[in-house]
Amino acid sequence: MKQHDIQIDKDGELRHFLTIEGLKKPMLTGILDHAENFSSVSNRQVKKVPLLRGKTIANLFFEASTRTRTTFELAAKRLSADVINININTSATTKGESLLDMLQNLESMQVDMFVVRHNSSGAAHFIAQHVAPHISVINAGDGSHAHPTQAMLDMFTIRRHKQEFTKLTVAIVGDIMHSRVARSQIHALNTLGVPEIRVIGPQTIIPKEAAHLGVHVYHDMHQGLQNVDVVIMLRLQRERMEGALLPSEHEYFHMYGLTEEKLKLAKADAIVMHPGPINRGVEIESSVADGPQSVILEQVTHGISVRMAVMSMALGRSSLTDGQERGQS
Amino acid sequence: MKQHDIQIDKDGELRHFLTIEGLKKPMLTGILDHAENFSSVSNRQVKKVPLLRGKTIANLFFEASTRTRTTFELAAKRLSADVINININTSATTKGESLLDMLQNLESMQVDMFVVRHNSSGAAHFIAQHVAPHISVINAGDGSHAHPTQAMLDMFTIRRHKQEFTKLTVAIVGDIMHSRVARSQIHALNTLGVPEIRVIGPQTIIPKEAAHLGVHVYHDMHQGLQNVDVVIMLRLQRERMEGALLPSEHEYFHMYGLTEEKLKLAKADAIVMHPGPINRGVEIESSVADGPQSVILEQVTHGISVRMAVMSMALGRSSLTDGQERGQS
Amino acid sequence: MKQHDIQIDKDGELRHFLTIEGLKKPMLTGILDHAENFSSVSNRQVKKVPLLRGKTIANLFFEASTRTRTTFELAAKRLSADVINININTSATTKGESLLDMLQNLESMQVDMFVVRHNSSGAAHFIAQHVAPHISVINAGDGSHAHPTQAMLDMFTIRRHKQEFTKLTVAIVGDIMHSRVARSQIHALNTLGVPEIRVIGPQTIIPKEAAHLGVHVYHDMHQGLQNVDVVIMLRLQRERMEGALLPSEHEYFHMYGLTEEKLKLAKADAIVMHPGPINRGVEIESSVADGPQSVILEQVTHGISVRMAVMSMALGRSSLTDGQERGQS
Repeated sequence: MKQHDIQIDKDGELRHFLTIEGLKKPMLTGILDHAENFSSVSNRQVKKVPLLRGKTIANLFFEASTRTRTTFELAAKRLSADVINININTSATTKGESLLDMLQNLESMQVDMFVVRHNSSGAAHFIAQHVAPHISVINAGDGSHAHPTQAMLDMFTIRRHKQEFTKLTVAIVGDIMHSRVARSQIHALNTLGVPEIRVIGPQTIIPKEAAHLGVHVYHDMHQGLQNVDVVIMLRLQRERMEGALLPSEHEYFHMYGLTEEKLKLAKADAIVMHPGPINRGVEIESSVADGPQSVILEQVTHGISVRMAVMSMALGRSSLTDGQERGQS
Repeated sequence: MKQHDIQIDKDGELRHFLTIEGLKKPMLTGILDHAENFSSVSNRQVKKVPLLRGKTIANLFFEASTRTRTTFELAAKRLSADVINININTSATTKGESLLDMLQNLESMQVDMFVVRHNSSGAAHFIAQHVAPHISVINAGDGSHAHPTQAMLDMFTIRRHKQEFTKLTVAIVGDIMHSRVARSQIHALNTLGVPEIRVIGPQTIIPKEAAHLGVHVYHDMHQGLQNVDVVIMLRLQRERMEGALLPSEHEYFHMYGLTEEKLKLAKADAIVMHPGPINRGVEIESSVADGPQSVILEQVTHGISVRMAVMSMALGRSSLTDGQERGQS
Repeated sequence: MKQHDIQIDKDGELRHFLTIEGLKKPMLTGILDHAENFSSVSNRQVKKVPLLRGKTIANLFFEASTRTRTTFELAAKRLSADVINININTSATTKGESLLDMLQNLESMQVDMFVVRHNSSGAAHFIAQHVAPHISVINAGDGSHAHPTQAMLDMFTIRRHKQEFTKLTVAIVGDIMHSRVARSQIHALNTLGVPEIRVIGPQTIIPKEAAHLGVHVYHDMHQGLQNVDVVIMLRLQRERMEGALLPSEHEYFHMYGLTEEKLKLAKADAIVMHPGPINRGVEIESSVADGPQSVILEQVTHGISVRMAVMSMALGRSSLTDGQERGQS
């Protein structure tokens, strides 16, 4: 089940972006380097480059997420692509063939890229396995599986502040085992050579599973934060609390909420990250979220650059620009 | 009640596109020829021409249809027009004057074209009768009356595969009498000179009415498909089945579903068409829909070209480009 | 609480457009003059100028208003800006910090302008007080407080027909005290030098409060309309009638509805205005709304020009174009 293979085309270039798993270090570094180029575009008076003019990108959101959709829409527009937003009522269209029929129809309209958000793990892979050769698929979050653009914007933010990955200690705090963000971050941190990755959270983190991912497990935050360079807080998924897997919000904050006091355990120049939107007073204290070590809003800015990078790499591949017209079979 | 007259401006050019009925053969052929030009645009690396830059097109959808709206939106964007999507809650605004007030407001905002989808037959005509002189109206489906861009993309697909219309036998299969698609197709096939048009379906097709349309009625599919060049399957409108006008889905498939076996009755090089979305196993067998004779996905592709053709013809008329500024009265 | 100060930047240029209150006459005249320039753009074949290419404008609508959103979206697109529409479920996001977090996220995505519609008075000011230095806020209607672009399009329309403001008598008819439109109009008329402003309406208009605004109060329409140059009718907010503050629709029409007969009390060349959408037969008779003195649809057209003017002034300020890149702190 080498799912990651389908992400790379025959020339070794990025075709789909579904998961960090299986991508090699030069590819991840290439994405970060491309994103650096786009980072300046967003600060210009004219925040727009003509790279994807005449390309059509469809946002297929099977799960509502105004925030994530907006970042992809802005990234696409700043690349001058045309964007179509399609919100899909999950119940009506995700049953087997009807989803594939819908995709084939969009393909026939010469859509070039699908940005897919779905609450089922594997949905973006499933779609990528079935699209026509000229189409690229970007995973904008699938169930508890992966959220690779989020992970790459986190890596971009870390590199901006810490330059090298190879000497860092990074802690991820929260309900890691149910988090697509955490899974993608761990793969990216490993691939980029971070020597020590710690995951800090409640008993839902099983040490044996974590060992497979190459991380160290802490259930006590005071131990886990000792001397780290980067603290990544996860959003508490409140809906999971109902199942009694997690303690109350109050208790959660007491145990795993990032306070100024706890942050002092980390290195003095540690940065604080969060994928947003933050639950103030639940997983993070406001004074920390808004404090001098927080880079949370920078992450949002870098998210546009990273998405521009991934979109332009997938749609600017040499196999698409070698002078051949794309045929209809 | 010469409704079709309002479709043509004083120079004989296409102003509105409401129905195939009443349009002459050179006009239909002209649309097909224009669409051929645009067909290559969608296969280019840069799928965009500046023909309608600075024009504003409003999609007025009184009836939800993501699929149809998407094709019009893509066609407009590939012509470089600005697109406004307006979804209208039928209950709130379609009562008499308030609809006209809304249209006048949009006209005053200098909208150039309304693309109208409505569940009442005649809605697009009503709107066309009341708009200001500079505005064009495209019917994107009105009740059971007409769906002219669908019919023209079907004609485009037939011409691509069969070149000449004048020697063809074409069969349309389904609940023809309640289908706006079928009505528009029959008018187009007649005008383009198809000598034999067959309609195949249940008893809701009344032979006397059909005679007015110049078609031959078959209630038995095995007879109707004999030796045809083109098979057009209609989508079964499931909501009609509740009224007991049609048999059960299972029975419908048995009687009028297109199977590989039944398709053998047609000519060996017959093509299979369907306006989509298809109900697999209801009106068409999957192996036929995905088989070598199916041109269903090509139809979707040609739909963009045909819509680009109609939009650019209506908004590029010489009466609009003779150097006069459009005045506000 | 000099709220209006925040509208002007250090160079005296328009940064936000939240309320007419506090803006000086040269600023209002400047907006009208800019709008004149844009007025011709909307009549061109290519209704588009590249002034705001590469700028990003977010429509933040906490209160649904297709009509108002459409005018801002069209104005932005005709200035070549990229537009993001964000409809916000009031209940979910307007509670204190979460709204500010959402705004900071959009700021971090390098959005340049927020167009804000909200059912709470002061919402646009609140947002303007909290945005980053490079961002402009336009008030598209906040509660019963202000609707400044509506007031300016009204002023534009009056100037087109009457040239000078300094000799006019203007009557505003309706539930003035609960109308954001009327408040903004009164401030604009005062600032532009209209010597006599009359407000005509039911007992909800308290003479003492009106005196503060520098207007004359009439409860009798026959007296109030005598010899006026401009009649501005307000839309009856039907939801207010339930509270028994206003008479029945029938009685309201009898007392304050504009009929042909009552209009004869005004000057022979008086113009009739209405912010729309009109309630025919409630606050205005159809024959008046559609009659020769009505300029209601012209107002809609001018609304695009005025919004283009305000948007381009706020985003084209010299402080933004002095060669400095905008920094992320």
